[in-house]
Amino acid sequence: MAMLARFIIISMVSLVYNFIMMTLPDLTTITTAAERIREYAHRTPVLTSASVNKEVGAQVFFKCENFQKVGAFKFRGACNAVFSLSEGDARRGVVAHSSGNHAQALALAARTRGIPAYIVMPDNAPVVKKAAVAGYGGRITFCEPTLAAREATQARLIAEHGAVEVHPYNNYAVIAGQATATMELLQDVPDLEVVIAPVGGGGLLSGTALAAKGINPAIRVIGAEPEMADDAYRSLAAGRIIPSTNPQTVADGLLTSLGDLTFPIIHQHVEQIVTVSEAAIIREMKYIWERLKIVIEPSAATPVGLLRERKIDLSGLRIGVILSGGNVDLDRLPWQG
Amino acid sequence: MAMLARFIIISMVSLVYNFIMMTLPDLTTITTAAERIREYAHRTPVLTSASVNKEVGAQVFFKCENFQKVGAFKFRGACNAVFSLSEGDARRGVVAHSSGNHAQALALAARTRGIPAYIVMPDNAPVVKKAAVAGYGGRITFCEPTLAAREATQARLIAEHGAVEVHPYNNYAVIAGQATATMELLQDVPDLEVVIAPVGGGGLLSGTALAAKGINPAIRVIGAEPEMADDAYRSLAAGRIIPSTNPQTVADGLLTSLGDLTFPIIHQHVEQIVTVSEAAIIREMKYIWERLKIVIEPSAATPVGLLRERKIDLSGLRIGVILSGGNVDLDRLPWQG
Repeated sequence: MAMLARFIIISMVSLVYNFIMMTLPDLTTITTAAERIREYAHRTPVLTSASVNKEVGAQVFFKCENFQKVGAFKFRGACNAVFSLSEGDARRGVVAHSSGNHAQALALAARTRGIPAYIVMPDNAPVVKKAAVAGYGGRITFCEPTLAAREATQARLIAEHGAVEVHPYNNYAVIAGQATATMELLQDVPDLEVVIAPVGGGGLLSGTALAAKGINPAIRVIGAEPEMADDAYRSLAAGRIIPSTNPQTVADGLLTSLGDLTFPIIHQHVEQIVTVSEAAIIREMKYIWERLKIVIEPSAATPVGLLRERKIDLSGLRIGVILSGGNVDLDRLPWQG
Repeated sequence: MAMLARFIIISMVSLVYNFIMMTLPDLTTITTAAERIREYAHRTPVLTSASVNKEVGAQVFFKCENFQKVGAFKFRGACNAVFSLSEGDARRGVVAHSSGNHAQALALAARTRGIPAYIVMPDNAPVVKKAAVAGYGGRITFCEPTLAAREATQARLIAEHGAVEVHPYNNYAVIAGQATATMELLQDVPDLEVVIAPVGGGGLLSGTALAAKGINPAIRVIGAEPEMADDAYRSLAAGRIIPSTNPQTVADGLLTSLGDLTFPIIHQHVEQIVTVSEAAIIREMKYIWERLKIVIEPSAATPVGLLRERKIDLSGLRIGVILSGGNVDLDRLPWQG
């Protein structure tokens, strides 16, 4: 009888827990995520530059997620997802197919909790990316470089180990984790009028919007996207998800299309998506290296392109910019042809 | 009569003032310098990296002077020197011959005070350096690329304008200014056991030593120098200044020889100078870019080379490293051949 009662209680707790996890993150969820990851993720600094402000004609506050663990905001979402799992689920491990920052982030988050991370990577992924994931203890399974092969390989790993999929962006725990960057930014600079984040799959931008609007509904949230991968721009215009088709951009973190969890959030809360040319992304990446003396990746330079090209009028405003990451190949910089 | 009394008072104040300026900086002088420049210079952050600590086998605290104005610690010294001048002296302007960070620092410090900075540069100086000095409002006079021509040109400017020379390192006001970086570092991390700074002319290292030893005589102060420009190493061994002869190093901020003001301070307070190979300087510069996601120049990588090559045993200690600057040509990085 006691056993049965215990079983029922555990089941109910688990049910409530899973229901919460399935629900759109609000300020409470984001606060919980922030508390959950506090011990493991860096509270990244906010940098400013008098010369940038002068050239942009506004006051810009850079939230430096390039200083985050694994060099990108992705660690926040992966960490929140991994530490949200029940003991039983966690023990079986997590799985994702990714060759980018999410793979490294998930591997490190899993290692931090002491559980396995199964990472599916295409066999043609750059050596440096394979080494990085392996360096964080990720267990890599290679497959053909097609979406079908990746999904089949992931499905096999889930069947084999009972591992839990942690999608890079189409996952509320991940979105809530990414949202913590903007929550911290607004704690440091409460009176921002605009927040700009880059958009690929939309995990960062939707989290940014939920945090910003949750804290202050008057804040304008704007997405920055490469012209050459403008599926979010077109999706917002069409009012439905338009997947990207063969995008070619130097901002390799922004190649993915919006997901069915990220699109509605962006559609509701994001004022507009502004597209930025390849030349501007490369130029502004170099500009930030020169002026702020920090290393950012092309994806992170996309919002700076929006500001410096003055594609929309934001003059005189107090603007937060999420510098999403700093993982670049220092032997092959994009301005070096 | 009132005129005479006023003249005497002004003369005496000026005498006392000049005497103070001629005296070896102590903790009071450095504190005064810190207060004097507070309004104009950045209080730079101190960064740490778990992976760097693991690889070095010690706890390393990086004082990020690459984030300082004009991208180098040099602004501290120039700023203290410029704002130490009396109104009358200041009005006639300041002069230096330099094609490096000091020229930019002095130009900006002078512009900040609203006085002219006359900068003597060799006519073969890189275009980017000329543009930087001009960009900060420096009045450049070009000359032949010889020491004799530079000194003659500077002497002419002093005679013409009555401008005050601000030497890049052989100047107590400059040394006291550079010392403020270590004072801030020890305010942030009071229990350091070792502080390491690069050494060229010795302005930074002597300031570092005066601040560190003034605050805690038990702190060990170590200099890091390129093997290919090891005049400070040899000077310390010989007990007298041995000028560098045709040094060739990628660490272009460390080409100069010690001065008669910096050498005695270093001789008294610095435990040892450790030399670092060109290959190590370049490797560690890239390493810091990759791990800390910050842009540092080769000079700043020299202390990191000392740590990572474990040339002396500092394992388990709490070590402060002055990252001296971040001014590099992003089109020509030293690891790219």
